[in-house]
Amino acid sequence: MEILKVASRSNPNSAAGAIAGALEQDGIVEIHAIGAGAVNQTVKAIAIARRLVEKEGTPPIKVIPGFMELQIAGEEKTGIRFIIER
Amino acid sequence: MEILKVASRSNPNSAAGAIAGALEQDGIVEIHAIGAGAVNQTVKAIAIARRLVEKEGTPPIKVIPGFMELQIAGEEKTGIRFIIER
Repeated sequence: MEILKVASRSNPNSAAGAIAGALEQDGIVEIHAIGAGAVNQTVKAIAIARRLVEKEGTPPIKVIPGFMELQIAGEEKTGIRFIIER
Repeated sequence: MEILKVASRSNPNSAAGAIAGALEQDGIVEIHAIGAGAVNQTVKAIAIARRLVEKEGTPPIKVIPGFMELQIAGEEKTGIRFIIER
């Protein structure tokens, strides 16, 4: 499964294109976001990606958000992991 | 369908309880969030709500984010609307 990292400065349209491409190829993609700005850009990107991949009559894509713990420069951080499935 | 409004100052645990309660009762709930802080709190609340409503062997709850346009004090604002289904 492809893992995309979205930051607060990520362009939601570009991230949406990457999400749509991964969904077309694998049917599933994982996104990691750390911080409120990154989570917001991720949600916007997912909303845009829906317009790219959802066809008339197909069910909406499924988004499953959860927490993830990670170490950045020796510090414990909590991020959000989104699993997205067609 | 119940509509919950989450703000940047909302407590994610309280919002999670409200989401879980609405899902237990109706199987579906809508959440409105305006701004990066509110969207971040909403995503955290959903991640916490999953722990409250997902039982062993049940599928994860489905989250469908989209944009919504609304007028606040005469100004056009774009918010995020989350539809959450069991």
